[in-house]
Amino acid sequence: MVKIEGYGDITPLSAEAEALVQSQDPEHFYKLGWVTGTGGGISMRKGELVYLAPSGVQKERILPEHMFVLPFAQSAVPKPGSKRDLLRIPSKKGLNESQCTPLFWNAFTMRDAQSCIHTHSQNAVMLTLLLGKDAKSFRISHQEMIKGVRLGGVGKTLAYFNTLEVPIIENTAREEDLTDSMGKAMEEYPDAAAILVRRHGVYVWGPSWESAKTQAECLDYLFEIAVKMLQAGIPLEGDV
Amino acid sequence: MVKIEGYGDITPLSAEAEALVQSQDPEHFYKLGWVTGTGGGISMRKGELVYLAPSGVQKERILPEHMFVLPFAQSAVPKPGSKRDLLRIPSKKGLNESQCTPLFWNAFTMRDAQSCIHTHSQNAVMLTLLLGKDAKSFRISHQEMIKGVRLGGVGKTLAYFNTLEVPIIENTAREEDLTDSMGKAMEEYPDAAAILVRRHGVYVWGPSWESAKTQAECLDYLFEIAVKMLQAGIPLEGDV
Amino acid sequence: MVKIEGYGDITPLSAEAEALVQSQDPEHFYKLGWVTGTGGGISMRKGELVYLAPSGVQKERILPEHMFVLPFAQSAVPKPGSKRDLLRIPSKKGLNESQCTPLFWNAFTMRDAQSCIHTHSQNAVMLTLLLGKDAKSFRISHQEMIKGVRLGGVGKTLAYFNTLEVPIIENTAREEDLTDSMGKAMEEYPDAAAILVRRHGVYVWGPSWESAKTQAECLDYLFEIAVKMLQAGIPLEGDV
Amino acid sequence: MVKIEGYGDITPLSAEAEALVQSQDPEHFYKLGWVTGTGGGISMRKGELVYLAPSGVQKERILPEHMFVLPFAQSAVPKPGSKRDLLRIPSKKGLNESQCTPLFWNAFTMRDAQSCIHTHSQNAVMLTLLLGKDAKSFRISHQEMIKGVRLGGVGKTLAYFNTLEVPIIENTAREEDLTDSMGKAMEEYPDAAAILVRRHGVYVWGPSWESAKTQAECLDYLFEIAVKMLQAGIPLEGDV
Repeated sequence: MVKIEGYGDITPLSAEAEALVQSQDPEHFYKLGWVTGTGGGISMRKGELVYLAPSGVQKERILPEHMFVLPFAQSAVPKPGSKRDLLRIPSKKGLNESQCTPLFWNAFTMRDAQSCIHTHSQNAVMLTLLLGKDAKSFRISHQEMIKGVRLGGVGKTLAYFNTLEVPIIENTAREEDLTDSMGKAMEEYPDAAAILVRRHGVYVWGPSWESAKTQAECLDYLFEIAVKMLQAGIPLEGDV
Repeated sequence: MVKIEGYGDITPLSAEAEALVQSQDPEHFYKLGWVTGTGGGISMRKGELVYLAPSGVQKERILPEHMFVLPFAQSAVPKPGSKRDLLRIPSKKGLNESQCTPLFWNAFTMRDAQSCIHTHSQNAVMLTLLLGKDAKSFRISHQEMIKGVRLGGVGKTLAYFNTLEVPIIENTAREEDLTDSMGKAMEEYPDAAAILVRRHGVYVWGPSWESAKTQAECLDYLFEIAVKMLQAGIPLEGDV
Repeated sequence: MVKIEGYGDITPLSAEAEALVQSQDPEHFYKLGWVTGTGGGISMRKGELVYLAPSGVQKERILPEHMFVLPFAQSAVPKPGSKRDLLRIPSKKGLNESQCTPLFWNAFTMRDAQSCIHTHSQNAVMLTLLLGKDAKSFRISHQEMIKGVRLGGVGKTLAYFNTLEVPIIENTAREEDLTDSMGKAMEEYPDAAAILVRRHGVYVWGPSWESAKTQAECLDYLFEIAVKMLQAGIPLEGDV
Repeated sequence: MVKIEGYGDITPLSAEAEALVQSQDPEHFYKLGWVTGTGGGISMRKGELVYLAPSGVQKERILPEHMFVLPFAQSAVPKPGSKRDLLRIPSKKGLNESQCTPLFWNAFTMRDAQSCIHTHSQNAVMLTLLLGKDAKSFRISHQEMIKGVRLGGVGKTLAYFNTLEVPIIENTAREEDLTDSMGKAMEEYPDAAAILVRRHGVYVWGPSWESAKTQAECLDYLFEIAVKMLQAGIPLEGDV
């Protein structure tokens, strides 16, 4: 129990946060191939607090005490290098906050999401490569799995005949430099449940961590089958 | 122990049902890639009761107390929205009955199956795409794994030289709207052990949950190798 | 402890047999995709006794008490339907002896192998399909993994520059009917460590169950990379 | 606790070495497909001692007591067949020291690495085959995962726009015969974090075993996506 000005008594890891990092199988996300090599990231908002997995560590070895805890209000627009209060310093030395932090905040502030997941899924990366440099978005329809994705990531679920559209933004040298282009794409595509980053991966969010996770899985399924369809010359839209 | 008119004393989860949901590895089906993103479903009949996995949840996190239990007789032709007695309300709030329910009942009533499994396997979906919009069924012969599939899903097993045929029906916006076309395909193809749904997945059944599961595996193996054969230009029928 | 005429006191499952079926991960082989849908089989010889996994069951659920135990001498040429002594009846009713039994005996009698493994690996099946109906064997050289395979399955290991050759036989309707053609291929190719069966899978053996398992893995690796090489138009022999 | 001349009291397996071999999931590396069939190897330096996994065994069954422990100084240039002191004889008879030993020492002595990993990853092997016999190195740029690889394996991490280059050397009949050509490639490519061996696999190192493992994962991710890009006709360098 930690006492922090303006936040009252804080039990940094709530039951939900524990569930997030302490599944029966700690290698869960790792086995999906989404976060190999320290890549990717996971965040969760719980009222006035945000929980973040640390950067540059083996994601399959994260323990609850390694999580960063930040105040939501203060960190609305965090800048790298600026001084911020960390409500909780991870117990393991040498852990760094993820460069994804400001990108996660996009999802929290622009969509009122409660969780945001970032992966380096090869399906996402191959899809951005196969669609080509001029493609501004990925579009697919007539797939049952579309029904698992929510409008804008947090609204009602899509229907089978709906066209799912996910914008694609260009990658940058520093991950935090994606903040603005990701925000701009979210404004331009208010119905999008995720943002693809060319040659990099995807950001997905939801109204709860469970929803963010299942939407990430549905989207990755759609990225994967779209790659197979493109390779087989099958159109992604329409029931042809 | 629950007492219900006409059913006597009921221990909602029998040993078999426990085995179904409480394997040594709760992520078993999930790891096969069949039920990612809350997709797919599992059902089991045990005498006058039917056990159903809830809808819209992470299948790898289902616990025995989340299962729906329905009377078999009453639910023979369930309609969405109609009032039905649930013998057992799952202990976790917010769980919904799967839209697959009436499709599972097709297997119970038309084939006297004791279990029916529904997956969103990418092998099944890619196969329906590669076979093309005009294909009414998937046919394959001369594969050892055909011997693991039963005539009509519940009869004697097929032989190596037999041609396995699985009808393909078109997907609909609402899953329960597949009930009639699935039933019609089952009538037209009395020897079929499963029904493929284009751009959606597959329904497989058997005389026990073990048989439904192993037949689902054999069929998925055949879907997968058929996709590879089509991509390599190898005919699916005959020993060429 | 069971007492059987001519065998003295028998503890049917030796420590080695326990290890075979009771690994830390009972789904080990299953996860490799070799024995899905009840397919495939495993056998082990220990002196005058042979241990066999039962047929038609989910291999990832086999327990030690499900294993068949046969006397090696008596079963040298078992015929289906003929009366044979089983030293140990599996405790679970309804378990049947595998049709693979006489094929395993080929490895025991012709190569003095102590273990034989049969899989339905898709890599093996795709390889027999891609090589075409006229190919009598699979040949590959210049692969590091060749060094993990033994001459004839039980002799010294091959060298990097050696050409590994595995004969391919045609599949038959009944698995036991493969006995003669497998035996003939083993005579014709005395250096072969395995027999591929077109549209079916592979039989691999070794001087111990550990060796049979690692050779099965090395061979499956070579089948898989050969499929990829054939699809990419890269010759399987020579360093081109 | 073992007492050895010149090394004082030695607790052969430090906490770090225990972690290396005793993860929550002993089949960790095995499941990645890097060390099937007894292939591949892992080593770790801790001050004056080096820990080595034994050769020719099933890597997913290695226990701490099977590890070899060698003095770093003495084994700087080990020669097969020459007499060397082993600080610790593995408790299981029949275990042999890996032929990789002198190759691991290249990483320890030339880069001051603390850990070196060798895999037979099919992504690595397919990449060397697809690049062709004349390719002296693998080059890739504009991939987010490049940022997980260190300059020379032990320096600062690369940037997104940097070109990652990994030299490719020819395989030899005996693994230890690669020592010289690997060393020569490391001299010629001082920024390389790994060495690819055609038709064989890859050697990766790092300033700690955690870093060697995450770099091995990042590199394998890049090998895999490069294979997919080459098969799809997408250039590996530049943002085209």
